[in-house]
Amino acid sequence: MFEKVLIANRGEIALRIHRACREMGIQTVAVHSTADADAMHVRLADEAVCIGPASARESYLNIPAILTAATITGADAIHPGIGFMSENAQFAQMVEEHGFTFIGPTPEHIRIMGDKVTAKKTVLDLGLPVVPGSPGPVETLEEAIAVAEHTGYPVLIKAAAGGGGKGMKVAWSADQLREAYQLARGESRAAFGNDQVYMERYLSKPRHIEIQLLGDMHGNAVHFGERDCSVQRRHQKVVEEAPSPALNAEQREFIGNLAARTTSELGYRGVGTMEFLFEDGEFFFIEMNTRLQVEHTITEMITGIDLVREQIRVATGAPLGYGQSDIRFHGHAIECRVNAEHPETFLPSPGKIDGYHAPGGLGVRVDSALYDGYRVPPYYDSLIAKLVVHGTTRNECMMRLRRALEEFVIGGIDTSLPLHRRIIAEPNFINGNYDIHWLEHLMAGK
Amino acid sequence: MFEKVLIANRGEIALRIHRACREMGIQTVAVHSTADADAMHVRLADEAVCIGPASARESYLNIPAILTAATITGADAIHPGIGFMSENAQFAQMVEEHGFTFIGPTPEHIRIMGDKVTAKKTVLDLGLPVVPGSPGPVETLEEAIAVAEHTGYPVLIKAAAGGGGKGMKVAWSADQLREAYQLARGESRAAFGNDQVYMERYLSKPRHIEIQLLGDMHGNAVHFGERDCSVQRRHQKVVEEAPSPALNAEQREFIGNLAARTTSELGYRGVGTMEFLFEDGEFFFIEMNTRLQVEHTITEMITGIDLVREQIRVATGAPLGYGQSDIRFHGHAIECRVNAEHPETFLPSPGKIDGYHAPGGLGVRVDSALYDGYRVPPYYDSLIAKLVVHGTTRNECMMRLRRALEEFVIGGIDTSLPLHRRIIAEPNFINGNYDIHWLEHLMAGK
Repeated sequence: MFEKVLIANRGEIALRIHRACREMGIQTVAVHSTADADAMHVRLADEAVCIGPASARESYLNIPAILTAATITGADAIHPGIGFMSENAQFAQMVEEHGFTFIGPTPEHIRIMGDKVTAKKTVLDLGLPVVPGSPGPVETLEEAIAVAEHTGYPVLIKAAAGGGGKGMKVAWSADQLREAYQLARGESRAAFGNDQVYMERYLSKPRHIEIQLLGDMHGNAVHFGERDCSVQRRHQKVVEEAPSPALNAEQREFIGNLAARTTSELGYRGVGTMEFLFEDGEFFFIEMNTRLQVEHTITEMITGIDLVREQIRVATGAPLGYGQSDIRFHGHAIECRVNAEHPETFLPSPGKIDGYHAPGGLGVRVDSALYDGYRVPPYYDSLIAKLVVHGTTRNECMMRLRRALEEFVIGGIDTSLPLHRRIIAEPNFINGNYDIHWLEHLMAGK
Repeated sequence: MFEKVLIANRGEIALRIHRACREMGIQTVAVHSTADADAMHVRLADEAVCIGPASARESYLNIPAILTAATITGADAIHPGIGFMSENAQFAQMVEEHGFTFIGPTPEHIRIMGDKVTAKKTVLDLGLPVVPGSPGPVETLEEAIAVAEHTGYPVLIKAAAGGGGKGMKVAWSADQLREAYQLARGESRAAFGNDQVYMERYLSKPRHIEIQLLGDMHGNAVHFGERDCSVQRRHQKVVEEAPSPALNAEQREFIGNLAARTTSELGYRGVGTMEFLFEDGEFFFIEMNTRLQVEHTITEMITGIDLVREQIRVATGAPLGYGQSDIRFHGHAIECRVNAEHPETFLPSPGKIDGYHAPGGLGVRVDSALYDGYRVPPYYDSLIAKLVVHGTTRNECMMRLRRALEEFVIGGIDTSLPLHRRIIAEPNFINGNYDIHWLEHLMAGK
């Protein structure tokens, strides 16, 4: 086991990793920018090293400074956390080259999954479903009709050079396709000077379903069930829940086992997440995140398994030591991401915390590096707290979340707590009836 | 289901009950003394009624004031919490006579279990083991030897009029008994002017093991496993854990099933706890608490069941709806009772909280009505927070508890947090090797 781990991150996730290390008897080294000298992860770590000024580029993204901190403190391993260096294959490689263990997958796996085209091709070859579409530009109407026969309707025609919805059309039948194809090409030509178009199956109301995975260095891999992260704003997850209210037992088992088998076939080590769009009973792979995710907490609540501990354990080379059937699921969990931002305008709201009181009691977990008097710096991600609630049933979980949100006090700055109170009172959230567009439509008053 | 419940208590347990009600969609009425106007349970409740001055006798023990508060707020039911009116049969009866539901057992059950002699006789008749002893005073040496044959050695001879250890002798054999019997009578005569003595089996290193029980109004009863509450000081529990490190699976099943069967035969309704001394593989009933216990939290952590919710549910007349085999146990839980007192002198330490930060993260639960700036009043029980930690194994649980204790900040007053940090570092606690005298011996430097 490692004796000392350097945590190359900040905020609640640095604290999360510190806690796992502490509970494993591992010493911790915090690194921090000058703006984070008073941060909780710095206060609680055994050692702390300042690695640069406030700008993340010069501190949390500063590879030489991080490696130097690891060297002078005698760390055995580096945990990259979430964001920053966590999906940087070059960093992972340099960490290993300098004789430290990178707590994460191989640089090669980070590289493969970091490129969307390579990632999709890789998992497609291993039998994972992706959104069906044209293999390249669609040159003629006849070809477009043939592609649509293959993908099924509705289809999306989109400009190869596109962006911002220009040259993008949806067709629900061959008749509509005839018109839409020509329109899309015309718009593309007008907007981009290039009339090449691609085609793929159009998903109108997909849900975001992701599978939590863990592999060891010996070819074993398991899944920890799915998370439903469809409550999003501008592709940012806002509320996550596990299990998904949209899946039945058969779908759950199908996608979990498929993702775990693929992980094993990839020879993937460490924690990772495969993300899918889900519509009308079908799953479509979109990407794999080769790191811990913010919302790993809800999976921990329903499985009772400490994923960061497992992540560290497999990084030492230890085998999983358990199989898929040993992983049991209990009840329901929901996470609210609390951000330092205005709940309606979403403008960032850094500043000094004046009054902090986290909710407590049965089934309530708060992951936050906030404390009363702490100053939220303006330089980094706005996530300041994760409120995670567990209940025997989804209904119990929601009722508990409601009372926990009533108790949560964060004074001095704007936060998204009022947004969360609003979301959990919405009938469509309560009924589990939402897709990835739902929250934006709600905010827009649609 | 009830629409409105009056919570006839204060502090963390009033908050605990408020939370359960909120999560069940039940409105809450807080009652409070003038000293508790700013208390958290008062702030969070839907309604609050001041029922008297600081003195508990004039407020939290003031039956007419509590019943009046229930009447004017239109409450359906009264939850007595822990302490105060919770084991007062007369209160339970008056609550029912005034047309409210008492969330607890019948006045008759409270009465039976409130009298130690009646309680022991009642459960003995139903087959529960009690510490074997003389049925009355032991008049002659021959009788003493006969009693000891029956109870087994060692035996304790104690003054009928006794107290403070005077006239109390232990004999490990018939030879020792001959001498000890005469010495005990002599000491009793000298100390109390009365040489009558009783005898019972002497337990030298017992553990305190208790079984959490729940019965409904239809004769069903289940147990939720045991709690080990042997870490005590002056008969006050300090740290509790579940399951007990001292029981094997067979002993656990034996005492759990026996207690549940007895509960069912008693026709007992609501939550209750049977307390036992445990030594050399044998259990001896000492008493039954006919209410919620402070340490119910650790049972909730290992079963995932909200005991206050269940307590309220069965008080409506609802049947349990599940059987013993539906109750599953997961992992290990430990509770530390944090008191407002000096960690070495145990002198009470009321006063203003200056800095409050509860630990968070996976497996950590804090039940506390403290907040920064709150003034702990000097009039009531010194319990201010319960730190409850869950882990997959006992070792994981202890490591997690250690890091949670490192993070816990309560400023402005003395608390028992340093005592807890000391206890969990003790090898005999870590090994689970302790009895009801262990903590006092440790504090005395023995």
